[in-house]
Amino acid sequence: MIAVIGKAETSGKYMKVAIQGERGAFSHQAALQLVRGADVLACATSAQVFDALDSRRAAAAVIPVENTLAGPVGEHLDLLLERDVFIHAEMRLRIAHNLIAAPGVKLKDIRQVLSHPVALDQCRNFFRKHRGVAAVPFYDTAGSVKHIMTQGLRDTAGIASSQAAKEYGGKVLMSGLEDNKQNFTRFFLIDKKRKVAAGANKTSLVFSLKNVSGALFKALSVFALRDLDLSKIESRPVRGKPWEYRFYVDVLCGEQPAMKLALKHLEEIAGVVKVLGVYAGAK
Amino acid sequence: MIAVIGKAETSGKYMKVAIQGERGAFSHQAALQLVRGADVLACATSAQVFDALDSRRAAAAVIPVENTLAGPVGEHLDLLLERDVFIHAEMRLRIAHNLIAAPGVKLKDIRQVLSHPVALDQCRNFFRKHRGVAAVPFYDTAGSVKHIMTQGLRDTAGIASSQAAKEYGGKVLMSGLEDNKQNFTRFFLIDKKRKVAAGANKTSLVFSLKNVSGALFKALSVFALRDLDLSKIESRPVRGKPWEYRFYVDVLCGEQPAMKLALKHLEEIAGVVKVLGVYAGAK
Repeated sequence: MIAVIGKAETSGKYMKVAIQGERGAFSHQAALQLVRGADVLACATSAQVFDALDSRRAAAAVIPVENTLAGPVGEHLDLLLERDVFIHAEMRLRIAHNLIAAPGVKLKDIRQVLSHPVALDQCRNFFRKHRGVAAVPFYDTAGSVKHIMTQGLRDTAGIASSQAAKEYGGKVLMSGLEDNKQNFTRFFLIDKKRKVAAGANKTSLVFSLKNVSGALFKALSVFALRDLDLSKIESRPVRGKPWEYRFYVDVLCGEQPAMKLALKHLEEIAGVVKVLGVYAGAK
Repeated sequence: MIAVIGKAETSGKYMKVAIQGERGAFSHQAALQLVRGADVLACATSAQVFDALDSRRAAAAVIPVENTLAGPVGEHLDLLLERDVFIHAEMRLRIAHNLIAAPGVKLKDIRQVLSHPVALDQCRNFFRKHRGVAAVPFYDTAGSVKHIMTQGLRDTAGIASSQAAKEYGGKVLMSGLEDNKQNFTRFFLIDKKRKVAAGANKTSLVFSLKNVSGALFKALSVFALRDLDLSKIESRPVRGKPWEYRFYVDVLCGEQPAMKLALKHLEEIAGVVKVLGVYAGAK
């Protein structure tokens, strides 16, 4: 159960890895790629994923943070700030949607298709071509396949990952249902240990701003003046302080001296600064 | 049917104003405050709201763009860029959640409560205190009240605006259900006319970046160098170009010379620049 955290793929035979959603979710696929031999702990809510780390029921967790079509997963950005965790690796998963039904069921038998609303929305062309098939919102992609299999439904299919078909014994009737193939989700591998692996070349951090003129410009100047590039900036509202924001920034730099100086400089300008992780960027 | 667009409250007796969601939605409340005597056109999807402007079925539309707890409404930011519309006013609506049931139904009769998942999530304390009441996700806040009233349900309530109770003849059993009172949604009033009213002191724009070092910093410098303050910056993924982003910025300036120069300067640095509207900022 030894895990060399910080590489894109970590060996963790039997290592408990918490995910939000049912087994077979895209997070499950990502967990298997990030931690070889991961033993996935399915949690109903995102807060429960972080709780599982606190209570040591899971040694690590894999959470989606942004999708190239839908945008950021705000709830996970909020939890990364609130909870005491550290990012150790990132990965990018191509989201491929499959139509999955019980074995023996044919496409012409299908009257309704269950899935998470975001997934249904990413497969509009399928529903345009199959007018007699109703799109029915469901709480989870993989959960739709679980539901169909446990209820023995013969006129209903789900839209989910191929992992979900494996998990519940469903059969893939059609693959590549997604309208836009440039559909990727970025995942973080997180745990409680504040450790930076050799070769880490990316830093994720969050900061708030003092209410002064040009505050964001000044905050970004601490990186620009040192030729440190940003790959991402995301703003999130501060709960309880309407119209105030925090900024999540990814800097293409590990623990080099310039980055340490930039962080010191940022503390002069920003309200709160928290480093969320230092890790090897996905290729 | 003459509308003096650009003021916080616009006179528009019988003016058709499109909203996404059922009548009685929070957008309906916002529309009535932005356009006095508005005649609301309820649309099932956000795309249909913009379609209604194109086809002239509606003279204006009112859309939510951000919430102080949940964050931005990404789909509306995307549509503001893609469609040919202009922002004429903004407003901030305090989101107050009400428990609404059929007349005569008592709190003790309620076994389940329907609402939009975001609304249910904002009323967690209610469900903690009422353990016997199940929270059931529904497609729309106001739609839950419509459903309860048309189906004559006596063991079910909805969580929605007070406007929804008025609209469908429901009765407010409890008000102030929201956990966090600092819950506001910002709405835009939009239409097809590119007109700037006198007194406009805020500009919303979107730009993409060229792939050069420190690009965002350089883009923001066009405002900072002219002492123009930003009240908001939001990034959105570019569809079809994974890991590229567009930036939505609100600048606290109308059509003054400094702003015109800043926009010219921005065009040197940014890929695409689009001004989404110039309007009077909400107090």
